[in-house]
Amino acid sequence: MTNPKEVKVGVLGATGTVGQRFIALLAHHPFFVIHALGASSRSAGKPYSKAVNWKQTQPIPSAVREMIVQECVPEQFSECAIVFSGLDADVAGDIEQAFRLAELAVFSNAKNFRRDAHVPLIVPLVNTSHFSMIPQQQRLHSPALKKGFIVTNANCSTTGVVIPLAALERAFGPIESCIITTMQAISGAGYPGVPSLDIVDNIVPYISGEEEKIEWETLKILGGVTQSDDGLKAFDMHTKQPLRISASCNRVPVIEGHTECVSVRFARRPPPSPQQVREALQAYTSEAYTIGCPSAPRHTVFVHEEPDRPQPRLDRDYQAGAGVCVGRVRQCRVLDIKFVVLANNVAIGAATSSIINAEYAVLKGIVA
Amino acid sequence: MTNPKEVKVGVLGATGTVGQRFIALLAHHPFFVIHALGASSRSAGKPYSKAVNWKQTQPIPSAVREMIVQECVPEQFSECAIVFSGLDADVAGDIEQAFRLAELAVFSNAKNFRRDAHVPLIVPLVNTSHFSMIPQQQRLHSPALKKGFIVTNANCSTTGVVIPLAALERAFGPIESCIITTMQAISGAGYPGVPSLDIVDNIVPYISGEEEKIEWETLKILGGVTQSDDGLKAFDMHTKQPLRISASCNRVPVIEGHTECVSVRFARRPPPSPQQVREALQAYTSEAYTIGCPSAPRHTVFVHEEPDRPQPRLDRDYQAGAGVCVGRVRQCRVLDIKFVVLANNVAIGAATSSIINAEYAVLKGIVA
Amino acid sequence: MTNPKEVKVGVLGATGTVGQRFIALLAHHPFFVIHALGASSRSAGKPYSKAVNWKQTQPIPSAVREMIVQECVPEQFSECAIVFSGLDADVAGDIEQAFRLAELAVFSNAKNFRRDAHVPLIVPLVNTSHFSMIPQQQRLHSPALKKGFIVTNANCSTTGVVIPLAALERAFGPIESCIITTMQAISGAGYPGVPSLDIVDNIVPYISGEEEKIEWETLKILGGVTQSDDGLKAFDMHTKQPLRISASCNRVPVIEGHTECVSVRFARRPPPSPQQVREALQAYTSEAYTIGCPSAPRHTVFVHEEPDRPQPRLDRDYQAGAGVCVGRVRQCRVLDIKFVVLANNVAIGAATSSIINAEYAVLKGIVA
Amino acid sequence: MTNPKEVKVGVLGATGTVGQRFIALLAHHPFFVIHALGASSRSAGKPYSKAVNWKQTQPIPSAVREMIVQECVPEQFSECAIVFSGLDADVAGDIEQAFRLAELAVFSNAKNFRRDAHVPLIVPLVNTSHFSMIPQQQRLHSPALKKGFIVTNANCSTTGVVIPLAALERAFGPIESCIITTMQAISGAGYPGVPSLDIVDNIVPYISGEEEKIEWETLKILGGVTQSDDGLKAFDMHTKQPLRISASCNRVPVIEGHTECVSVRFARRPPPSPQQVREALQAYTSEAYTIGCPSAPRHTVFVHEEPDRPQPRLDRDYQAGAGVCVGRVRQCRVLDIKFVVLANNVAIGAATSSIINAEYAVLKGIVA
Repeated sequence: MTNPKEVKVGVLGATGTVGQRFIALLAHHPFFVIHALGASSRSAGKPYSKAVNWKQTQPIPSAVREMIVQECVPEQFSECAIVFSGLDADVAGDIEQAFRLAELAVFSNAKNFRRDAHVPLIVPLVNTSHFSMIPQQQRLHSPALKKGFIVTNANCSTTGVVIPLAALERAFGPIESCIITTMQAISGAGYPGVPSLDIVDNIVPYISGEEEKIEWETLKILGGVTQSDDGLKAFDMHTKQPLRISASCNRVPVIEGHTECVSVRFARRPPPSPQQVREALQAYTSEAYTIGCPSAPRHTVFVHEEPDRPQPRLDRDYQAGAGVCVGRVRQCRVLDIKFVVLANNVAIGAATSSIINAEYAVLKGIVA
Repeated sequence: MTNPKEVKVGVLGATGTVGQRFIALLAHHPFFVIHALGASSRSAGKPYSKAVNWKQTQPIPSAVREMIVQECVPEQFSECAIVFSGLDADVAGDIEQAFRLAELAVFSNAKNFRRDAHVPLIVPLVNTSHFSMIPQQQRLHSPALKKGFIVTNANCSTTGVVIPLAALERAFGPIESCIITTMQAISGAGYPGVPSLDIVDNIVPYISGEEEKIEWETLKILGGVTQSDDGLKAFDMHTKQPLRISASCNRVPVIEGHTECVSVRFARRPPPSPQQVREALQAYTSEAYTIGCPSAPRHTVFVHEEPDRPQPRLDRDYQAGAGVCVGRVRQCRVLDIKFVVLANNVAIGAATSSIINAEYAVLKGIVA
Repeated sequence: MTNPKEVKVGVLGATGTVGQRFIALLAHHPFFVIHALGASSRSAGKPYSKAVNWKQTQPIPSAVREMIVQECVPEQFSECAIVFSGLDADVAGDIEQAFRLAELAVFSNAKNFRRDAHVPLIVPLVNTSHFSMIPQQQRLHSPALKKGFIVTNANCSTTGVVIPLAALERAFGPIESCIITTMQAISGAGYPGVPSLDIVDNIVPYISGEEEKIEWETLKILGGVTQSDDGLKAFDMHTKQPLRISASCNRVPVIEGHTECVSVRFARRPPPSPQQVREALQAYTSEAYTIGCPSAPRHTVFVHEEPDRPQPRLDRDYQAGAGVCVGRVRQCRVLDIKFVVLANNVAIGAATSSIINAEYAVLKGIVA
Repeated sequence: MTNPKEVKVGVLGATGTVGQRFIALLAHHPFFVIHALGASSRSAGKPYSKAVNWKQTQPIPSAVREMIVQECVPEQFSECAIVFSGLDADVAGDIEQAFRLAELAVFSNAKNFRRDAHVPLIVPLVNTSHFSMIPQQQRLHSPALKKGFIVTNANCSTTGVVIPLAALERAFGPIESCIITTMQAISGAGYPGVPSLDIVDNIVPYISGEEEKIEWETLKILGGVTQSDDGLKAFDMHTKQPLRISASCNRVPVIEGHTECVSVRFARRPPPSPQQVREALQAYTSEAYTIGCPSAPRHTVFVHEEPDRPQPRLDRDYQAGAGVCVGRVRQCRVLDIKFVVLANNVAIGAATSSIINAEYAVLKGIVA
């Protein structure tokens, strides 16, 4: 598939942590062009370089340095085909809703609509098939929306675990249960986020709301979309083959990259061997990559053979953080198989997922 | 029980990480008095303050500053009633064996004899009953030993999890399965131990041999001592009620204090509620404390109610690190109950356990 | 000097970082007894354990757990002989002023009155002689205050450097110039303070206002109190022998303990040798210790001989952080002598200094 | 200048920290091609990917994965025009000498020959003019060498400070004195290097030999090359205008990037203003960049205006770490001007400097 021509995009929450990452990624995108930046009224009216407390390791892209930040109202984004939302949850709901109603395609990293019955929750390396819900989402409004819709991507810690689980279900059928312990990077909490006094030489064995997100979002993502006799579609939440998930979430003194220890039990008896699991993970490909999304990684899952990998500092930037790394695939004495996943929480766990979702929507003609 | 008079003790591996901790703890002990220090021939003959690269936060105790370090041969320790061993595994086997044959009571933190069929592996807040194996251990030698024996304590990560598991089994009967993910402090690897380039801003999801230790040692500690018809005793490895344990071990950038996320399934149906579990953990007392071991903590298990505790930096020194802290007791969607444990790996996870074992042995008359 | 009987004290800003440290230190004080706790109206009316987000490594002292927090108004503290202030600068000015007018002796860690021409800025191991300004401070009010006054202690980074400088001036006469580079712990910024994303694997070479504090406060502390013909006293700011100070302040990923690299040039030619400097530092004693202040350290300055000390993690708790540690005393090729100082910023750099100041005032009869 | 055709290069010490960095940089070089890898006999004979404990954040370049590691003997490198040495000091002396005698051009990061009277110590953004010493170095041997020579680059902490000092001397004439306090990253110590127990939540105010290196190497680099009447050249060590340097070196918990606080006094009165200094630093260009060395940075010195920059985590990768960043240029109350420098110790502080030196030598025809 050849790349489309320029597609104008906006970024909401442009001065925040996720917004900065959107901008860093979009600055060199093959077809997305940043056209408008939105932030709070405190920032609106200022050149981006004055409004932002830039915390990325590369300089502010020259294309946006002098761009004037707008308020997050649809009128300022009317020329955009797509808006990416890195808004905080306390404002994302109303703003994203307004943008949808103004016929804008919203790709959101916020949590507000993830549990909405008509908003797909899409990890682009897993369930792009859920885009099929968009027409129904648009028909809910009266008159039906023509171009406006909202698509969300998952919480960063959900993303890390759901990719290998999807690979395993594709290869070996349903997973029955899964125990996950996360060790999550401080960048997952935004800025200022975690106070240094809480995390230097320390671990915090709790992240508010995080365990619930993993346990719930995974079901929506891995579940199918069912259609009832009247033609209405619904997310089935993996209910046909119940999947029990138990998560324990920890904050650790790591800048970037969530590490997760995962044990799974398959429905299928006997379960696959560690070697079969390794091969299935390595072989897993995403439709997003297949159809040519430029930000989709070639290796959806990179499987490490060394006993002590993946490690966040060494492996989080592999493929620009767009895939996940798995290692230590071995038998579990209680469930069937256990392994370690590393996912870059600010790349595939956040902005990169939104961007691949948007690339997919463009390439598939879902975005006008 | 009143404290005995002075008991002379020696420390083997006195210049190492565990040895330093032994010395710091013994310097102010109510009845143990450091009488001899042993280390490698490189250190032997020097005053302790010259031989050691002291890494503790308190100064070298004045009682040992000028004490001349000896080679680790029994002749130099003949006046000691007890020797504590903080030796490295590559030399601990031969040296501890030689000390036992020389009729010395050895309390070892090394791993070499933990799997020995006649050497008790004792976490002093859990299975002091295993001291009953000592007479049989002594009779194996010909002629039978009179005072010499070896007692080991457990690996630091095993210690953290086995204490709450013991509390739960005492209250609710056998545990059937247990999944553990550890986040272990760098001090657990000794000095120089973990290179800083491997652990600053990083996690290493692997510690050589550690998962096997947890999975095996827990069975020996929680299992009983059985006696066959001919009077021979054996450790039953929890085989009457098989217990499956699956551990995933991680190194994290924390100085001291191992944090472990634990999920358990009980044999008993229905399982206890989180509140019942909390109460059982809080109520658990050790015989070591009951009989008056001065280093045994009043709260074997301290149960935190706050959602974000225990944390290693804040909680590792509670009761001088002699007990464990548990928090976040809640239901597990896959097994029954999950919680977080914090154990000070250099206190109850190492030297403190050896010392309480020795205190117990003295108070019970097991040491002459 | 024997300890006085119980002296009732209050703590303002009791829920903050410095307030918590005051409480931890006062809980076991030989004669101060915590009688009242003050905090913002958000906390007032609650038991202390509910109002505070306790971040110390020891548990909340039982004596204050259930104490009801008060608003910071003098009426609630009328039975106190002394109030310690750990208030934030944005409120400390008005509140401390009100307490002084209500005839309370205020020992403040806040910066608001440090530059006041009648408020002594006292590092208790250095310039307790500045208490002589109190009568004049009291006479400024009309009618003159009888018991109310304010005494401040210095900024944490000033404290670290001013103690060895005082020792050197006592032994060798005036210092002419001094270049200081600090590496300051995150606890110096309070809580939440430094965001972890700013300091993990990082250094911030800037702390707002800090360099000016060191350069100014040092002059007030090391300078004398002069008296003009009309009997009026004034702080002379070291003007008789001008002292030029240049400070560069950095934040580093250390929990506690400010490390400072210091180079000095003496007026005296030839300057003292490194060995003479070492001896003078070691020999330096404080009047606070001499007259028996229980929190004053025996070693005002502990001089390390090892080449790689002091280190914050190993040395910050020496003497409960009440003195300072100096190491690496050697010649400077540009000025005369250079060395490294370590001062515990939350002990001698904050609460401990206030407490020793108050102890001194009680023992000297300055507090009624 | 157009790039030359392929130049075959070898890397000595290829499995070490510096060697890995050489390989990562050379893998995508416009004209250098890695032809041979040398390491100790323990590694020799193995494919590189088996011999190395690879610790870089990018994967092993495919071009060297299967390359067989050689012993460090000249015969194995005879087809190379250049060898880069990342050898440890304990072996670098003999090996580099043997390679020179075998007519190989050696660009060394090791310290062994830095003080040699005929070996240039070249920071490529500063003193490429010192290449003029090469012919004399070659004539010392009998018969004179035709192609073999040794060029060294400076210690990582020297490099950071010498670049801005060179810029200042070029603009304002001689500097008279300079006080430097460094905060050096752990990667500067190689691998395993600094034990994590020494540096997590800590600072070590000492690095063996480092202060002497800064104080001595700076003089050689900033000094000129003089020629006596008999035509013999010599490094003048800045003796015509004596420069006094005083360095204090600290190890801090930062992965990469040395931060240095620098105060300078100029000979010239009045000294330049901070603004003049900023402009001079920003304007400074290197001959290496001017003649087209592909690894030389466009901004030799990037001057930050923000008060809190440069910071190692945010700024160390600017221009791939090939330049230095300076910030906080302001007046010093003791000397004249003070500022903060950040230099990437593993890039411009090590391998990148060697590579630019070699690029320069190739472009200038110094290497055959």
